[in-house]
Amino acid sequence: MQLYNYFRSSASFRVRIALALKGLSYEYLPVHLVRGEQLKPPFSDMTPAALVPMLVDGDQQLTQSMAIIEYLDETHPEPALLPGDALTRARIRALAQDIACEIHPLDNLRVLRYLVNELKVSEDDKNRWYRHWVETGLDVVERQLAASPMTGRFCVGDTPTLADCVLVPQIFNAQRMDCRLDHVPTVMRVFGECMALDAFVKAQPSACPDAS
Amino acid sequence: MQLYNYFRSSASFRVRIALALKGLSYEYLPVHLVRGEQLKPPFSDMTPAALVPMLVDGDQQLTQSMAIIEYLDETHPEPALLPGDALTRARIRALAQDIACEIHPLDNLRVLRYLVNELKVSEDDKNRWYRHWVETGLDVVERQLAASPMTGRFCVGDTPTLADCVLVPQIFNAQRMDCRLDHVPTVMRVFGECMALDAFVKAQPSACPDAS
Repeated sequence: MQLYNYFRSSASFRVRIALALKGLSYEYLPVHLVRGEQLKPPFSDMTPAALVPMLVDGDQQLTQSMAIIEYLDETHPEPALLPGDALTRARIRALAQDIACEIHPLDNLRVLRYLVNELKVSEDDKNRWYRHWVETGLDVVERQLAASPMTGRFCVGDTPTLADCVLVPQIFNAQRMDCRLDHVPTVMRVFGECMALDAFVKAQPSACPDAS
Repeated sequence: MQLYNYFRSSASFRVRIALALKGLSYEYLPVHLVRGEQLKPPFSDMTPAALVPMLVDGDQQLTQSMAIIEYLDETHPEPALLPGDALTRARIRALAQDIACEIHPLDNLRVLRYLVNELKVSEDDKNRWYRHWVETGLDVVERQLAASPMTGRFCVGDTPTLADCVLVPQIFNAQRMDCRLDHVPTVMRVFGECMALDAFVKAQPSACPDAS
């Protein structure tokens, strides 16, 4: 398998964690988002979405990080990243989507650029925007985790799941942008559990070949 | 089952379509988002996310529209909304996420309100923002659909899937906000196929008990 990705892209980071948890090897192909390589050939000729990560498995191209992780879980079931019954799986997916649909899209590079270039938002207001969605969004995740008997060592139960693959990169972003995190102790406890595992450590941005 | 939802919420609309496609009956419980009912008791006491839709099945609460639809597909498998092999299922999920993670979060009511109230963006710029993400995001979906042999009568194959449940509400929003749609002919062909089905028609906002 080949993974087109960028060290600092948190959607890429999610997939790297999943691959590492499953012990799958892959070729790392960097696409430099800040230089706009996703919008230029050869990458833009390969995929209409112009987004990383893209996983190539044989002659098939797969996009969208959560869809890729579900695919990896169906094709390489152990260890399961969506374990349990339908209700447990729904919980895992909902937590992942609380981050991937409610927080992360608002703080994407292309969105921040639109705020600054098109709407002429100041640097301060852009940073306030960034932190607002991270801090309020993680507060929702915190309250979900704190309230549920399904929460264990990790977001759901005692093994890492899709939800943890999505949570950890969001915390990396939050820390890089100096977001408040003292209001989300359960989130940070789970983050600590994840970062004690080799799979999360070796998938992190600073461990990537294109890290700068 | 009970569905807490709002007639105009496109995430709610996705779940209503899935329930209708599966022929499942449910109690419709309106939560008026524009009046902020999601942020006040009794709804806010029930769920930390303060987001609709929320599905109640027995004593369990489920949130996040795509997670709810996956749950319905696992607990009521026919007709399948994620049919086929792992690759086909990945394709269905990726198209759904192209909309649910790349377009819809940017045009949420709370995001538009932040632009106007906090960043003092003008009404014109807010509308331009809205249309930008819809038009560029649907262009990505169009190119994915136009390029793939997996595209059939519907987004993937000849039966409606999760991808169609997510696509149709996005087109309703696009039409309501006067977005360009002439650049996405394949998207609009699939939209037409969907709206020829009773399940999509009866789930639409104007057919809801709280429509105004």
